[in-house]
Amino acid sequence: MNTLLCSNEDVDEYARMPAVIDALEAAFAAYERGDALMPAKSYVDLPQYNGDFRSMPAYLSTDDWDAAGLKWVNVHPDNPDDHGLPTVMGTMIYSDPETAYPLAIMDGTELTMKRTGAAAAVATDHLAVEDATSMGIVGAGVQAYTQLEAISEIRPIEEVVVSDLDDARVERFVDTFADEFDIRGGSISEASHCDVLSTVTPVETPIVGPDDVGEKTHVNAMGADAEGKHELADDLLLDATIVIDDHEQCTHSGEINVPYHDGTLTDDDIHAEIGQIVVGDEVGRTGDTGVTVFDSTGLAIQDVAAAHVVYEEASEHEGGSPFDLVGADN
Amino acid sequence: MNTLLCSNEDVDEYARMPAVIDALEAAFAAYERGDALMPAKSYVDLPQYNGDFRSMPAYLSTDDWDAAGLKWVNVHPDNPDDHGLPTVMGTMIYSDPETAYPLAIMDGTELTMKRTGAAAAVATDHLAVEDATSMGIVGAGVQAYTQLEAISEIRPIEEVVVSDLDDARVERFVDTFADEFDIRGGSISEASHCDVLSTVTPVETPIVGPDDVGEKTHVNAMGADAEGKHELADDLLLDATIVIDDHEQCTHSGEINVPYHDGTLTDDDIHAEIGQIVVGDEVGRTGDTGVTVFDSTGLAIQDVAAAHVVYEEASEHEGGSPFDLVGADN
Repeated sequence: MNTLLCSNEDVDEYARMPAVIDALEAAFAAYERGDALMPAKSYVDLPQYNGDFRSMPAYLSTDDWDAAGLKWVNVHPDNPDDHGLPTVMGTMIYSDPETAYPLAIMDGTELTMKRTGAAAAVATDHLAVEDATSMGIVGAGVQAYTQLEAISEIRPIEEVVVSDLDDARVERFVDTFADEFDIRGGSISEASHCDVLSTVTPVETPIVGPDDVGEKTHVNAMGADAEGKHELADDLLLDATIVIDDHEQCTHSGEINVPYHDGTLTDDDIHAEIGQIVVGDEVGRTGDTGVTVFDSTGLAIQDVAAAHVVYEEASEHEGGSPFDLVGADN
Repeated sequence: MNTLLCSNEDVDEYARMPAVIDALEAAFAAYERGDALMPAKSYVDLPQYNGDFRSMPAYLSTDDWDAAGLKWVNVHPDNPDDHGLPTVMGTMIYSDPETAYPLAIMDGTELTMKRTGAAAAVATDHLAVEDATSMGIVGAGVQAYTQLEAISEIRPIEEVVVSDLDDARVERFVDTFADEFDIRGGSISEASHCDVLSTVTPVETPIVGPDDVGEKTHVNAMGADAEGKHELADDLLLDATIVIDDHEQCTHSGEINVPYHDGTLTDDDIHAEIGQIVVGDEVGRTGDTGVTVFDSTGLAIQDVAAAHVVYEEASEHEGGSPFDLVGADN
């Protein structure tokens, strides 16, 4: 009996985006229904290295499958300059819930990008206008790529505007997708006037204001992942229909954490958790909905759901590298 | 740049016991000095499978090295009968604390046995009589083997008595060590009269009483790992010098958890944490010490320290299997 090793390239190949989007929709529903277990992230802070580790275990049960696993992930901002390594890396252990056998170990870095894109796609599917053909992206770093990859799966995106202070990053992004979309660099306001916008920056001072977005733009606010970070102006948030992934995580470290803590934004300003919309307990976009915002912090159940897809697809196509880690007899 | 994969056989080969014992002694000292981070274990309970997962992250810094990592481990008691798998399995991710790069992924099942044996050896070194030549073992399951392997490293063990209700387990244990020791099966009392005793059973009713042990026997109480479990009679504990690995874990789920919660045993009955003895703040055995008991629950820093040894030894001897998990450029 073997454990399947999936490198970053294997994860890229087998995290087939339509399947990951479906798995995440099922995961949000399971979480809403109480069919998921997700202990709070636990942190190991290492200020001497300007970094931290986070342990993210979870279990979830959908109508068709259940899955368990853990992602061990870090944030080390000095990595790119000092070590030529990504700021965020991760390793995912994917386990059989019935026996705990480690079915697969996979690169959690690529997995995180895929599941983050897929989470935005699930929200976009419920919150963007049906005929959304244009997409803006603010922040052209590594996470931006799976935003476009995922969202173009669920809306007929034709036109893309990407905005970043770093021209080289814009050029690289444009070159990557030039064959697939009518894509160009542009200002934050140009990007934000698209039907769908994903903001993917680490800023602590908002860079997108209420006049930047269109009347019915859906915004995926992906960047904020720590106290003090936010990308959208308070006025934009307060006028928008706000959907969050998880109340505890979003109020602690998501897009809404700053105005929530200074009292500018309260629970009354939050329309729903995404799981409530997925299961039908709350509505998504309706005829008179204006701007919508999805505050995504990233949940451990997303990693487990995405890992489920990678493991199933890689097993089916004999991908990955089998390795006898445990040495159990059967 | 590669991640080193270490199977159960690699861990067995490279967790060289004298080095693991030294690493654990350093880890207990680091924990005592405040040079370790060890968030509480977080649990994912799955009663539908009669099992659970535990996430055990840790960082520690000794005088010579620092290390970080996480063990994802389970307890699924139905595994042996229903699936031919061990009750406890584990997977260890060993990370560079400076960059978080996953240096190694290793079988945590074998690692757990090695570090558990090594923890008993550290305690035995400080608490057993110097010229201990006899060792008793109560419970001849998988954890028993590394008890003898480790303790015979630090005491001149010649005679071994092993006690278990299952004759086949006794025979297997005796056969394994027949070439190295004067070894035989025997009663609990015979085993317990040895200079050093390790109890490695999952019982909830004590099986070793005060008359079973010798006047200066050192007891490693390894079995209790959950509320309600204990192997030693209250009278034995109350007359003994008790050393624990961690106050929170021991009072919650260690050997002392039952009498501690019913008030029979209090903090006044606890002599020290093992780290206090290792750093010299408390004494170990002295001339007039009688029976000693080490209550071992198993700490995440032990896993990280043992993983450090496996990684260093395997790297030095070109062991393990390098695998490009992350796909980072350098």
